[in-house]
Amino acid sequence: MMNEPTIRDIKEAHRLIRPFAHRTPVLTCSALNEMCGAEMFFKCENFQKGGAFKIRGATNAVFSLDDQEAARGVATHSSGNHAAALALAARWRGTRAYVVMPDSAPEPKKNAVAYYGAQIHYCGPTAEAREEVCAEVLCRTGATFIHSYNDRRIVSGAGTAGMELCEEIPDLDIVMAPIGGGGLISGTAIAVSAVSPKTQVIGAEPEMADNASCCLQADRVLPASNRDTIADGLRMPLSELTFSIIKKHVREVVTVSEEGITQAMRHIWERMKIIVEASSAVTVGALLTRRIDLSGKRVGIILTGGNVDLGNLPWR
Amino acid sequence: MMNEPTIRDIKEAHRLIRPFAHRTPVLTCSALNEMCGAEMFFKCENFQKGGAFKIRGATNAVFSLDDQEAARGVATHSSGNHAAALALAARWRGTRAYVVMPDSAPEPKKNAVAYYGAQIHYCGPTAEAREEVCAEVLCRTGATFIHSYNDRRIVSGAGTAGMELCEEIPDLDIVMAPIGGGGLISGTAIAVSAVSPKTQVIGAEPEMADNASCCLQADRVLPASNRDTIADGLRMPLSELTFSIIKKHVREVVTVSEEGITQAMRHIWERMKIIVEASSAVTVGALLTRRIDLSGKRVGIILTGGNVDLGNLPWR
Repeated sequence: MMNEPTIRDIKEAHRLIRPFAHRTPVLTCSALNEMCGAEMFFKCENFQKGGAFKIRGATNAVFSLDDQEAARGVATHSSGNHAAALALAARWRGTRAYVVMPDSAPEPKKNAVAYYGAQIHYCGPTAEAREEVCAEVLCRTGATFIHSYNDRRIVSGAGTAGMELCEEIPDLDIVMAPIGGGGLISGTAIAVSAVSPKTQVIGAEPEMADNASCCLQADRVLPASNRDTIADGLRMPLSELTFSIIKKHVREVVTVSEEGITQAMRHIWERMKIIVEASSAVTVGALLTRRIDLSGKRVGIILTGGNVDLGNLPWR
Repeated sequence: MMNEPTIRDIKEAHRLIRPFAHRTPVLTCSALNEMCGAEMFFKCENFQKGGAFKIRGATNAVFSLDDQEAARGVATHSSGNHAAALALAARWRGTRAYVVMPDSAPEPKKNAVAYYGAQIHYCGPTAEAREEVCAEVLCRTGATFIHSYNDRRIVSGAGTAGMELCEEIPDLDIVMAPIGGGGLISGTAIAVSAVSPKTQVIGAEPEMADNASCCLQADRVLPASNRDTIADGLRMPLSELTFSIIKKHVREVVTVSEEGITQAMRHIWERMKIIVEASSAVTVGALLTRRIDLSGKRVGIILTGGNVDLGNLPWR
């Protein structure tokens, strides 16, 4: 198994990505504080380049390559924010990104990846079809494969958001982040425990995609089961790497109902006047629906992204 | 006719409202810059208290009252952001707000005004019914009537947003703001011409509610005619006060189609990940649809508010 990244890796990632990624603002909202009973500090990665925190890991990965590797390009399979981020980072590095995605992926996702200049390779809807197309692309191009979270460089890059948050807002009691594959929460937990050792890290995931909770209970990595959640960025299962980091550094993982996620998303839109995707709202959902009581605590919350299909919203 | 406010009035308003209103952030967006061909600096009044710039004027008006006047409360007729702002400002002053609105007003608007603690008095849908209820309320309570834009205190308060913008972003070539009744553009024009004399002020209004353009062409105040625009904050006609200020201090007024407004609104949501109401998008719509060419210019844009019924969006 690969080594866990350290705070040194995260600081090095921060140095590498600084010319490219935004240092996103931290916003507050008194109305939401009142509703949730906590003092919340929102790290707004929805304002990040590419509309999500994913650019941090992707840029770190792409700029960690040596020139020869970089010249052959990078590849991934993903239909979400990671693919778009990798495409953008590759463009910054002056190289190619190859993205394998199912031909059934929604049009807006295809468009986003194409917009940043990636070469898209479509595959059938099964894992086998995906692997096959991916192997073929890697073999033909010599590109470096960059997994969306089972990768030290991705986890290190993701950790820079939590590091910035703790540097900017001292004395946080808690930092919360959503859990999908676990890349963000892993990087966050390593960064927070180093920069602000008294601050605890709590993860939130959909009830309908509660792989992290299941893994922690079973004390081993399990395949994803139910994934029918509106939070489409949180459908992947943990990897060995992210599981071991979460087990060590994350205090607690809470689950949130679909209704709780949708409600939280709408409250964030209405009260903060910012656009976040459903996956971003799961943390606030945990507080709103009282899945966890953080009354009177200072809580940092990473809002992970804002890429939403405005023609297909989860209400009405 | 009442005297025009001066930059001294605006500075005094700024001093009065500072403990209450946010100093809103100025955001930029490279994707929108590319689409519009100008370098834009967005003054985000959608993040303002109450979700709109209106709190600036309302707070200035309410805190300009002496204690005796204040004790009798304030009143207005409006179903929009001004009513909510006046209610909130009255609460801060520890007094009452009486709001007259048609019983046909949309539920979200009634709720917003009630949320801030105003006493709502419903009237029929005609101007006569409104005047009658309003007169009755004023007579019975002794409250001070505060018009939503035909009021020096409101114009002065509104001008503080443009003042902050010019202080923060020097050397703007242009400042743009939407025009409805003209309170915001009037205050903006007075502030900008004083703080940054080389900067020109341009107004934008819907084609479907082009009262300002008509007034300027006729060189006199005209009643509102067509008002069937999605930009519901921009349906009121100019007043004598705002007309005379606009005539003197505003370089140009441009009109924008309904489609241009909706498109701009959606682009701002998608690219900037912030929520603005249709009335806010008319300025960006003017640039997107090439109603005005500001290529290569540094353009300050006041995004006026973010109060949107999320269950009733203008697309799909």
